[in-house]
Amino acid sequence: MSQPATTLPAGAVGSVGVVETQYLDLPRPVKLDCGRELHPVRVAYETYGTLSPQRDNVILVCHALSGDAHAAGLAKAPEEESARDGFGAEGSAKGLGWWDGMIGPGKAFDTDRFFVVSTNLLGGCRGTTGPSSINPETGRPYGPDFPVITVSDMVRTQRAFLDELGIERLAAVAGGSLGGMQALEWSVLYPDQVDAVVAIASTHALHPQGVAWNAIAREAIMRDPAWQGGRYHGTGRTPDGGMGVARMVGHITYLSAPALEQKFARRLQFADDIRHTITEPEFEVENYLRHQAASFVKRFDANTYLYTSRALTYFDLARQHGGGSLTRALENVTARTLLIAFTSDWLYPPSASEEIERALRSLGKPVELQVIDAPYGHDCFLLEEARQTPIIRRFLSPGEAR
Amino acid sequence: MSQPATTLPAGAVGSVGVVETQYLDLPRPVKLDCGRELHPVRVAYETYGTLSPQRDNVILVCHALSGDAHAAGLAKAPEEESARDGFGAEGSAKGLGWWDGMIGPGKAFDTDRFFVVSTNLLGGCRGTTGPSSINPETGRPYGPDFPVITVSDMVRTQRAFLDELGIERLAAVAGGSLGGMQALEWSVLYPDQVDAVVAIASTHALHPQGVAWNAIAREAIMRDPAWQGGRYHGTGRTPDGGMGVARMVGHITYLSAPALEQKFARRLQFADDIRHTITEPEFEVENYLRHQAASFVKRFDANTYLYTSRALTYFDLARQHGGGSLTRALENVTARTLLIAFTSDWLYPPSASEEIERALRSLGKPVELQVIDAPYGHDCFLLEEARQTPIIRRFLSPGEAR
Repeated sequence: MSQPATTLPAGAVGSVGVVETQYLDLPRPVKLDCGRELHPVRVAYETYGTLSPQRDNVILVCHALSGDAHAAGLAKAPEEESARDGFGAEGSAKGLGWWDGMIGPGKAFDTDRFFVVSTNLLGGCRGTTGPSSINPETGRPYGPDFPVITVSDMVRTQRAFLDELGIERLAAVAGGSLGGMQALEWSVLYPDQVDAVVAIASTHALHPQGVAWNAIAREAIMRDPAWQGGRYHGTGRTPDGGMGVARMVGHITYLSAPALEQKFARRLQFADDIRHTITEPEFEVENYLRHQAASFVKRFDANTYLYTSRALTYFDLARQHGGGSLTRALENVTARTLLIAFTSDWLYPPSASEEIERALRSLGKPVELQVIDAPYGHDCFLLEEARQTPIIRRFLSPGEAR
Repeated sequence: MSQPATTLPAGAVGSVGVVETQYLDLPRPVKLDCGRELHPVRVAYETYGTLSPQRDNVILVCHALSGDAHAAGLAKAPEEESARDGFGAEGSAKGLGWWDGMIGPGKAFDTDRFFVVSTNLLGGCRGTTGPSSINPETGRPYGPDFPVITVSDMVRTQRAFLDELGIERLAAVAGGSLGGMQALEWSVLYPDQVDAVVAIASTHALHPQGVAWNAIAREAIMRDPAWQGGRYHGTGRTPDGGMGVARMVGHITYLSAPALEQKFARRLQFADDIRHTITEPEFEVENYLRHQAASFVKRFDANTYLYTSRALTYFDLARQHGGGSLTRALENVTARTLLIAFTSDWLYPPSASEEIERALRSLGKPVELQVIDAPYGHDCFLLEEARQTPIIRRFLSPGEAR
């Protein structure tokens, strides 16, 4: 489903080429944690590489809060605003997938070996059914009538989707941040169907400061009068003001203080001296925040932000599966687990990965934790491709598998 | 101007008693950094202790972003919502000053020895002239026509106010956070009139992450349609939604992640399990944030928040006074300087105090830095009274003065 842009010499690192997002409608309703069923459910997806005849080379890649199915390659019809909008992505080519540095021939998730599948998550706004999809009962967008979903619901939807592709087992499931939560959830919900987990800059349960940042972002959206209780579709008004603030909060939590110091320091934007203004940006970092907010609201649905943020704060393996014990929650895991964390990531700090490592190790499960010393905060999972690649390639190499 | 609540035995630690905020109108306009002049200017203030006949025992106490002149004792007419609303202040008596633990007989700023003066800062909303004051040119509140002020303007206003009280010299000027910025500014603007500076949890220039948090808080207010470009007075609408978000951002930046873990962990607020809700608070920390937002908007003016936040991001001793060099900016300082910082304060980190210490030391100026190992983040300057007290008492003791 992808066309290599060029023919690569053996062993070279390359692009998966031009890719078009596909869509698949699930034949059956998805049962949700809240007790409701959702139908119809459409899943937006992309695939890279070739499915082996034995169907045993599948890697499912799961995206984070603001991502989409377009993980690698160049989009056939690039969006005006890329999902690859993180720190340092300014110079990247338009239409490039959000994890293009990680997925492709010779890359961490090597499409010469693996068939990589990427879906937009349940509740999304980039092709998979979510709050902006049409509610068949009303003929109008769900808005706040969309069921409150969980990470388990996202994973069950991916499971149902892979069934339609005829894929039973995953050689690996991988993701960063909320994507890593999905990967971990896979290993618990479907222990017999996952060979390996790669959970990067992730956690088994977000710590209370992270819960607070997410709550503040949601409050910013819901307090915007244009949100209208979530029923803004068709009114000509969207809560761009609140969404912008939510995105600004997100951006700063994704970065580290030293990274901001290095990139912006206290440089003024437009002049040598202050201009005594309240309403205009004055420091470069203030201008950067406004730019990030403006570009985000063009491409992202506010309700999807609310639902996805809620799901990731709810995520708690110990509460959901272990009666409060992380070790008990992980008891049935059979997958080999690779955890990667970054020293400067204060939103998903290495300590969270260490807790998972400890629990798995105490159960005698195969687990490996790599903490990478890197300055860019949580965004490292998108930026530190070169240093993650050898770790992941080795972890996924044939010799490592049991 | 304060009545001791009880007669204390010598050496005992006590309250300054019941206090009533006073007001003074400055006879002359205040010249501002932006080039404008402000007139009339009223200053709200309180004093504790007794002015010595030589007028040489005055300590000026400067408050932070959301404080006011009521620093110590019990207010004669307590506000419904106290300015003492930080972390851990829930159990404190209604009407207690925001730094009551630090100011009083036998306390850090000992009113048995010192005459402590506390003013509401220029641009404030608690009695001193600010954006909600009447603009004499229009007969209506200034709103966005209030001049954009700086920390220097705040200090010049305090200088003019003390002139009216017949006070020329300060035995000390002290404050935390933005209050510490004012204290440092005093030592630079009026080097011959300040004997000692106590700057706690403060900085010579906020780092870019702090600039970003302040920008986000201001964006939240200005993007609230009820802000109306700052002209909300008399419209029956105030930007409470945005102000609430600004306060939530503030609260989380004032605390540390471990403090939030200790106080809230991931405890749910109302039930044993999640209730699948987007709009209602679910975790205790979410409920805490809503409560803090709701109480803050009742007592604080949105424009004052904007102006004060802007002033503290502008503050930059090196840019203002040293042509980019902090050392040059501090060249004429004659005051002894005590800097206190807290290990867990990531908004005003110890590194900022270390930079000031280094610059003063390189100039041969008397400076002392105490870094206190405490878990409550920036709020430590309001909470860690017991550990700051002996440091400050010793620093202010007669034997220490030159």
